[in-house]
Amino acid sequence: MGESDFIAALKALASDPAARGLDDDAAVLELGSETLVLTHDVLVEGVHVRTDEDAADVAWKLVAVNLSDLAAKGAQPIGVLLGHMLGEGDARFIKGLREVLEAHDVPLLGGDTVRGSGPRSWGCTAIGRATHTPVPDRRNARAGDGVFVTGTLGRAMLGFEAADRDSDHALAYRRPSPLIAEGIALAPHVSAMMDVSDGLLLDCFRMAQASDISIDLDSSRFPVADSDMRDECVRWGDDYELLFTLPPETPLPVPATLIGKVGGDDLAPLWVDGEMIFPKDGIGYQH
Amino acid sequence: MGESDFIAALKALASDPAARGLDDDAAVLELGSETLVLTHDVLVEGVHVRTDEDAADVAWKLVAVNLSDLAAKGAQPIGVLLGHMLGEGDARFIKGLREVLEAHDVPLLGGDTVRGSGPRSWGCTAIGRATHTPVPDRRNARAGDGVFVTGTLGRAMLGFEAADRDSDHALAYRRPSPLIAEGIALAPHVSAMMDVSDGLLLDCFRMAQASDISIDLDSSRFPVADSDMRDECVRWGDDYELLFTLPPETPLPVPATLIGKVGGDDLAPLWVDGEMIFPKDGIGYQH
Repeated sequence: MGESDFIAALKALASDPAARGLDDDAAVLELGSETLVLTHDVLVEGVHVRTDEDAADVAWKLVAVNLSDLAAKGAQPIGVLLGHMLGEGDARFIKGLREVLEAHDVPLLGGDTVRGSGPRSWGCTAIGRATHTPVPDRRNARAGDGVFVTGTLGRAMLGFEAADRDSDHALAYRRPSPLIAEGIALAPHVSAMMDVSDGLLLDCFRMAQASDISIDLDSSRFPVADSDMRDECVRWGDDYELLFTLPPETPLPVPATLIGKVGGDDLAPLWVDGEMIFPKDGIGYQH
Repeated sequence: MGESDFIAALKALASDPAARGLDDDAAVLELGSETLVLTHDVLVEGVHVRTDEDAADVAWKLVAVNLSDLAAKGAQPIGVLLGHMLGEGDARFIKGLREVLEAHDVPLLGGDTVRGSGPRSWGCTAIGRATHTPVPDRRNARAGDGVFVTGTLGRAMLGFEAADRDSDHALAYRRPSPLIAEGIALAPHVSAMMDVSDGLLLDCFRMAQASDISIDLDSSRFPVADSDMRDECVRWGDDYELLFTLPPETPLPVPATLIGKVGGDDLAPLWVDGEMIFPKDGIGYQH
């Protein structure tokens, strides 16, 4: 059974809209007068984090990528649960965990620690409370909307092999910042929103497909960290910026860059400078 | 850093009562007018499940052990999230997952699928809504209470190596039933409650320690599946029955067996037939 077949079978088990929580957006759950947002991400040694990664950075990233999923829903985090496989660097893991929880004022609610052998994996479930309903998702971009992205892309890529572990770029890679406040500010205004975890182009493609529209990007507008590596900066991923669409005339609620517009083209979901681009062209990190 | 040091460090990061969610009871979270119960358990191939286990049974057990943690809180499940490492038997995994979700009418909300190598691990987060507050936990057993356990102990142990995969005992091992309805019926009445996942004796020891009382058990009362293996039946674990204490004179809300009483002894937490018993005596599955 291939990965995509497996995910399709899983989605068939989940009732829409819950299915959105599978490898896509976080799940949304109505509970009394509250709306919960739930996400679960797993990091695997050698796949998502280097085998020589500082365990403090693994802990930070594990929590931060889940909080980023909440941010894309405009949700206020209310807690995390961890699944931790014991091993090397556990004292560093605790240090990084303390730092990321304190930095975002999120309580550790619980979890499980297990023994294992071979490459380690770590799971994190983050729970948040929606601050705006309907909760934004990637499926509602509309023709005529502007396409925006926060921040600067490619910082994590440049930081991945940076010699100075404490440079801004290195920290962007090691210690990504989930944009929780920005997500909350954007939620009432956006037509669609998601975080950019796997590269701007791939995530734009996904948003366009999910919304059944096309996205036309102008590459000269991409806010990249290194203009000599423009292409790499929008394909590498790990930046955890927010990608969103806004109806025309809507004032921008947070600083962001207009990078294109939503069209209704049905030939292809993604266009860059007038050319169709597909995932098979290697436009991002597919896992 | 040893396992117990790591868990202690984790607990120091979590604020009480949230800390209870770490390897102990599920976490309890007030949210508006609702009380959420959250639990996260990880199964590791070769540690918690045999390497040759049918993936359908792995999926069942993964969800069932988490639902059992909710049952011990008297919580009604509202959904699960999964962390799944792709590999052999994924079609069987989907089958078992569908079966356990349908059997307990629990929706799949989301999760993550990852590639990995080496022994696989699976994580599950279960979310429930408390049906009674205060939510029961293991910490409130009181001197004078009766100590009770549901069902019959040792069935999973007998089923572990059963030749007939479809015998009652084999199903008790492969397809444990979380006692959700029983937990809900018990929640308003118990002084303390937890599930028996690691063996009756070890879990009694833990309840006694957490409640700062002693538990005095009468081994002749143990409801065991094989009276020739009385000792093994109360040490092997994996039964997912409910262990609880009731104040004197409280009518029994569900069928269960009185196995002892709560005392105030401060010499040792656990006594069986008048003798002190400790975890170092090998009284259960410690992971």
